Amino acid sequence: MKEFTRKLCEENSIVGLVPTMGALHQGHLSLIKQARQQCSSLVASIFVNPKQFSPSEDFARYPRTLPSDTEKLENAGVLCLFLPEAKDIYPQNFSTYVNVEGLSERLEGRSRPGHFRGVSTVVMKLLQIVQPQFAYFGRKDAQQAAIISRMAEDLNLDTEIVVCPIERETDGLAMSSRNVYLQTSDRQAATVLYRSLQAAQALLQNGSRDALSLHSAMERVLKEESRAKIDYVEIVDAQTFDPLMHINRKAYVLIATKIGETRLLDNLLVDFSDKGQLTTEL
Amino acid sequence: MKEFTRKLCEENSIVGLVPTMGALHQGHLSLIKQARQQCSSLVASIFVNPKQFSPSEDFARYPRTLPSDTEKLENAGVLCLFLPEAKDIYPQNFSTYVNVEGLSERLEGRSRPGHFRGVSTVVMKLLQIVQPQFAYFGRKDAQQAAIISRMAEDLNLDTEIVVCPIERETDGLAMSSRNVYLQTSDRQAATVLYRSLQAAQALLQNGSRDALSLHSAMERVLKEESRAKIDYVEIVDAQTFDPLMHINRKAYVLIATKIGETRLLDNLLVDFSDKGQLTTEL
Repeated sequence: MKEFTRKLCEENSIVGLVPTMGALHQGHLSLIKQARQQCSSLVASIFVNPKQFSPSEDFARYPRTLPSDTEKLENAGVLCLFLPEAKDIYPQNFSTYVNVEGLSERLEGRSRPGHFRGVSTVVMKLLQIVQPQFAYFGRKDAQQAAIISRMAEDLNLDTEIVVCPIERETDGLAMSSRNVYLQTSDRQAATVLYRSLQAAQALLQNGSRDALSLHSAMERVLKEESRAKIDYVEIVDAQTFDPLMHINRKAYVLIATKIGETRLLDNLLVDFSDKGQLTTEL
Repeated sequence: MKEFTRKLCEENSIVGLVPTMGALHQGHLSLIKQARQQCSSLVASIFVNPKQFSPSEDFARYPRTLPSDTEKLENAGVLCLFLPEAKDIYPQNFSTYVNVEGLSERLEGRSRPGHFRGVSTVVMKLLQIVQPQFAYFGRKDAQQAAIISRMAEDLNLDTEIVVCPIERETDGLAMSSRNVYLQTSDRQAATVLYRSLQAAQALLQNGSRDALSLHSAMERVLKEESRAKIDYVEIVDAQTFDPLMHINRKAYVLIATKIGETRLLDNLLVDFSDKGQLTTEL
C-alpha cells in the first residue's frame, strides 16, 4: 500500500483516502463523491477495527458486506481498496496508541470508554500508510471528526481532514451501518432523533440562543417516543466540545439515543456568518 | 521547516534528523557523524521539551548553550537547525499524545511518570514536520530508543530509527548533557556506573548467563561508592524490556543511579551472533 501511493505521489497525483468499516451506504458514497472533486486518485479502506469496540460491543456482529462494498467502490471510481487484516494492523507486541485527551473522554467517550483511542490510533496508522493529501469523514460522527481533525493538527500531519454532510433516509434518519440492526418496529421510532433536532432547529431559526430551551424542546419530542432511551442530548462548541449555555458560535446539537437495542447518533450543525447570520445544517 | 524538507525530498535528497535538547556534547556529534554516512542532508533540532519533564524535574535549569551548539552543528556539516518554540510545538488546545504503553511505564517510566509520553509525542511531531528517512538516537538512553523504535514500527512511520553507540569520557563516564550538574566531588564517583557495568561484562565474558549473578556483582561495586544511590539495576530483553533471568538473547544491562543530586543512566548491550557467540558493547 505504501509503495502504491508513493508511486502515485511521484506522478503528482492528489491522493484522497476514505477510511471505512465497510457495510457501505449512501453516506460513504457521498464521501467518495466529495473526494473525487478534490483528488485525482482515491483510496478507500475497509477495516473493522477491533480496538474501537469494547468487549461488550458489537464487533463480532458488525455488518460485513464485502462483495457489495467492492462493487460500490468500483462503481464510485475508487482506484484502490485497502483491505488490511487485523494481524497486520496490530502485530504481536503492538503497543503504541494515539489519544486526543479530554475530547476523547466526553459524550461518546464516556459511553464507550477506549473507543476514540482505538479510532485515533487506527486512523493515524491509515494516514501514515496511505499518506493522502485529503481524508474524508462523515459529520454524523461529529465527535470522531473533531478528534481526527485535532489529532491531524496537533501531530503536524500533512493530511487535510475533510468533514462531509450527513446523508439521510427520506424520513430523516441519518444513514449508518448500524441501521440494519433496527427491527421493523424500531425503524419508525428511530426518526425521533431527526425530529428532535428539527425542534431545536426551529427554535434557533425563531431566534432562540439558549441551550436549555433547545434541550427541553428536544427532550419533549424524545419522551413521546417510548422506544427511545436517551443517552445524552448536548449542545457543544464545535471545536472543543465544551458545553455551551448560550449559542453564539459554531456549535453542534448532539444526540445519542438507544432505540430498542440499537444505539444511534445524530446532530445539527449550527454556525454563524461573519455578519452574525445564523445557519443550521441537519 | 515542512516546506524546506519537502524541497529537499523533491531533489531526491536523503534527509536525516538528529533530534536533541541542545547542550551538545561528543555524544550528539557522534550521531551526526553516523547520519552523514547515510544521508545527504542533515537536520538537527534543538528543543527542550517541557512535556517530558515532571514539575519536580530540571526543565528550568536544564543546560542551554545555543551559541556553542550552533557552532558545533555548523562545523559538523548540519544543513539546517530546527529551533522551534514551545508555543508553536504545543499551541493552545493541544491535546494529542502518543504513548507506547507498557514499555513507557517501566524502569525510567516508573521513576519519571509521564516522561516517555512526552518524549514519544514530541518525536512523533518532529518526524511529521521534518519527514526524515533516518532519525538518530543515542544508546545511552536505551529505553527511549526502544520506545521510539517501537512507535515508528507500530504507527507505520516512514522513518528508520538508528540507535548509535554510547560516547564516553576517557574514564568511562557516559556522555550526557546532565554531567555538567556533577559537583567536582561527584565527578569521580560518577564512574561507578561504568565500573559496575564492567563487572557485569567480565562475568558475561567468563561465561556467566545468570542475571542474578550479574546483579550481585554490580551491586557490590555500587555499594563501595557511598555517594551513589541506586535507582535500579536491571537486565532486560532489548526489544520488550521484559526482565531476563537467563541471558540468552539480545539484552541490556541497565543502571540508573543518583550521584549526589544528579541522576545518571548507563547500560551495557549484550548480543549473540547466529552461532551463539557473545558480544558485549559498553
